[in-house]
Amino acid sequence: MQVRIQGRREHYRTVAFDADRNAVLLIDQRVLPHEFKIVAVSDYERTASAISDMTVRGAGAIGATAAYGLAQGVRAFDGAEAAEFESHVASVYETLKNARPTAVDPVNAMNIVRSRMADGASINEKKTLALQAAEEFADEDVAHCRAIGEHGAELIKDGARVLTHCNAGWLAFVDFGTATAPMYVAQERGRAFHVFCDETRPRCQGAALTAWELSEQGISHEVIADNAAGYLMQRGEIDLVIVGADRLIAATGEVANKIGTYTKAVLAARHGIPFYVAIPLSTIDRELSSGSDIRIEERAGDEVLGAWGIDETGRRRYVRIAAPESGARNPGFDITPPELISGIITPHGIWDVNG
Amino acid sequence: MQVRIQGRREHYRTVAFDADRNAVLLIDQRVLPHEFKIVAVSDYERTASAISDMTVRGAGAIGATAAYGLAQGVRAFDGAEAAEFESHVASVYETLKNARPTAVDPVNAMNIVRSRMADGASINEKKTLALQAAEEFADEDVAHCRAIGEHGAELIKDGARVLTHCNAGWLAFVDFGTATAPMYVAQERGRAFHVFCDETRPRCQGAALTAWELSEQGISHEVIADNAAGYLMQRGEIDLVIVGADRLIAATGEVANKIGTYTKAVLAARHGIPFYVAIPLSTIDRELSSGSDIRIEERAGDEVLGAWGIDETGRRRYVRIAAPESGARNPGFDITPPELISGIITPHGIWDVNG
Repeated sequence: MQVRIQGRREHYRTVAFDADRNAVLLIDQRVLPHEFKIVAVSDYERTASAISDMTVRGAGAIGATAAYGLAQGVRAFDGAEAAEFESHVASVYETLKNARPTAVDPVNAMNIVRSRMADGASINEKKTLALQAAEEFADEDVAHCRAIGEHGAELIKDGARVLTHCNAGWLAFVDFGTATAPMYVAQERGRAFHVFCDETRPRCQGAALTAWELSEQGISHEVIADNAAGYLMQRGEIDLVIVGADRLIAATGEVANKIGTYTKAVLAARHGIPFYVAIPLSTIDRELSSGSDIRIEERAGDEVLGAWGIDETGRRRYVRIAAPESGARNPGFDITPPELISGIITPHGIWDVNG
Repeated sequence: MQVRIQGRREHYRTVAFDADRNAVLLIDQRVLPHEFKIVAVSDYERTASAISDMTVRGAGAIGATAAYGLAQGVRAFDGAEAAEFESHVASVYETLKNARPTAVDPVNAMNIVRSRMADGASINEKKTLALQAAEEFADEDVAHCRAIGEHGAELIKDGARVLTHCNAGWLAFVDFGTATAPMYVAQERGRAFHVFCDETRPRCQGAALTAWELSEQGISHEVIADNAAGYLMQRGEIDLVIVGADRLIAATGEVANKIGTYTKAVLAARHGIPFYVAIPLSTIDRELSSGSDIRIEERAGDEVLGAWGIDETGRRRYVRIAAPESGARNPGFDITPPELISGIITPHGIWDVNG
């Protein structure tokens, strides 16, 4: 999407590839929103590190990064032995897979690249096909998000006030995002609307990333404490909620997403406000039989007991907020049942999950 | 309540008076929870400043501070002229009233002190009566909070997991607090229970003050992001919610309290979890006809866009979290309707607000 660099608007993808330098290009999300920096990652081991150290995060974005990383590793092979090549490919694959072992997107993306490589007769052909497959994977991520935007934009009427939670924006994908895609398309269509970004404690992706995206795109928005959404709904100041999802359980229609999503769904239902979840099809889980089968990650308490930000000198710092001897519970996700969900916005249209 | 000073447990009130030094003693709440410091405020003008700069905060605590501040100012008068004395008293009263012009507690407390002073025949008698009245006001605040604790403790069964929001603890009153008083009495009665403290963004009074109080008192507790309460309720990990209130509208039974309270009440109702509000009678507003008559204060956006805490060197700092060009909405309070409230815990017993 658009990023303002010294006043000029330029278009960037979250993840891209420089074939001449055999480098994966990533927007460094660790320094956002206070600094915009693109890093050119020069070998697959560093690409794996960029996934594990959160230089890049978000389902679609780490999928594309792993696909490019695999192509990058394959292209760096300088031998001629087929067996040696295969063992090199397997090692690149494992390195990238282990960068975020619980994530499903890198594995799915790399499997697509590998299966395409099988069509190549020579090592050189396989190298070419690997990069082609990775590029197509990234382009498809963009096309799917764009299609989510086309369908979802119809929900955002002129003058609408939209609430979103966490960051399911273009930074989490290759471009457009999921929850944000309808906003970007509605803006293209000339609609005026306002977005409330839940700050999304404890990691504050809403305040940091979603608000930054909307700033760069010139969309009217305000950050709110997670506590304030209920108040705004009481006063009739929210017309629509759109969030992303980490997983949609096909068997039940339950949605796993960032902690706090369930609370917003409960509030929206009480106030008769439509609550939509925007997802690409890769988010659908056809294996689990219920949301209660998902093991909810308990993250480090430090996230809740303090906050990261920049100080008055621009230096990134952690400050401790909580009482010095107190601990924390820090579940990362919650489960929203289908009866609280008005619809699922997919690349193929809006589904009624209760239908 | 108890505070551990170098391992020893000592009893402190949030607000007290040193008659020999004519000084108001305040726990400096601006440096909590990272430092425990009692300041002896030596004249009424500085006492007024301590109210306005938030050295002391919380309804009962600022009421008692104003009562003591008025007595302090009265006692400092060194003339003999009755008319001059009366004009001095009026000036002390105005100074303390203007320290927090929208708060009702300082005014109510000072009116009690002034009306008692009217019984004095001489300036010296009036000085004596002023301090007596202030001491009685503070003692009554303690007795009321203690009585809330006695009634509310019955709600906390052995093994209970209790959620609270913001700080309606002893730091907000002279002692015991309101929402916390049932916890302190339940602890005295030997019950084991666990408290989840909502961090209560944006000012984080739950993480900083309530968690600190419970730490000092040795009560098992954890801080949670405001987003996490819904998840814990879904999993059956919360048995009871107790919060304080800034105002209870007698005409409707609506409760105005810290932003986010309404959300917790909606979640509790969905999960069939009892939701109680603990208040002294001074919190009851008999004038307004509805919660919608309350003008909800919109506070500075900086509170939402960043956070205060201490850095690794122990220095108190503000860090900016949000995107640099983004603004915020920051309503300070919300209104919870009576149908979401299981009962009001008062010094005189538990009321059914829907009865």
